[in-house]
Amino acid sequence: MQAEIKIRLKNGISDPEGDNIKKALLLLGFDNVIRVKTLKSYIIEIDCEKKDDAIEEIKDICDKLLANPVIHDYYIEIIE
Amino acid sequence: MQAEIKIRLKNGISDPEGDNIKKALLLLGFDNVIRVKTLKSYIIEIDCEKKDDAIEEIKDICDKLLANPVIHDYYIEIIE
Repeated sequence: MQAEIKIRLKNGISDPEGDNIKKALLLLGFDNVIRVKTLKSYIIEIDCEKKDDAIEEIKDICDKLLANPVIHDYYIEIIE
Repeated sequence: MQAEIKIRLKNGISDPEGDNIKKALLLLGFDNVIRVKTLKSYIIEIDCEKKDDAIEEIKDICDKLLANPVIHDYYIEIIE
């Protein structure tokens, strides 16, 4: 089973990478860019038969390794 | 208009970050993880009325700044 995990900064947490990309885009002439936010995504393939079990396990993976609960929100989507 | 851009490594390009996450997950006891791939995503908000124009502009942004055409594929999805 494959799942996509999106990890993004919580609202209110500054995103300097996004801010710098926005600055670079303005310098390159893309004047109509209003905001840039960055996310980190992972596609994880796990050997698991049931969708619910897979989601539980991936939540556990996020909590233990991938996401920092102080600054990150994460979203899990089962692809197949 | 908001668009989500996903930038991933082309097939055949090694993904050491994903490989190391897989190793870490195995060490943490997640034995059924088969593969981990990493992606970088951006949410860009641009001031643009037409969807087609927005897509064209974001393709241009990817080509000029965000993606390296030698190693990356990118996907654009208009959110709203």
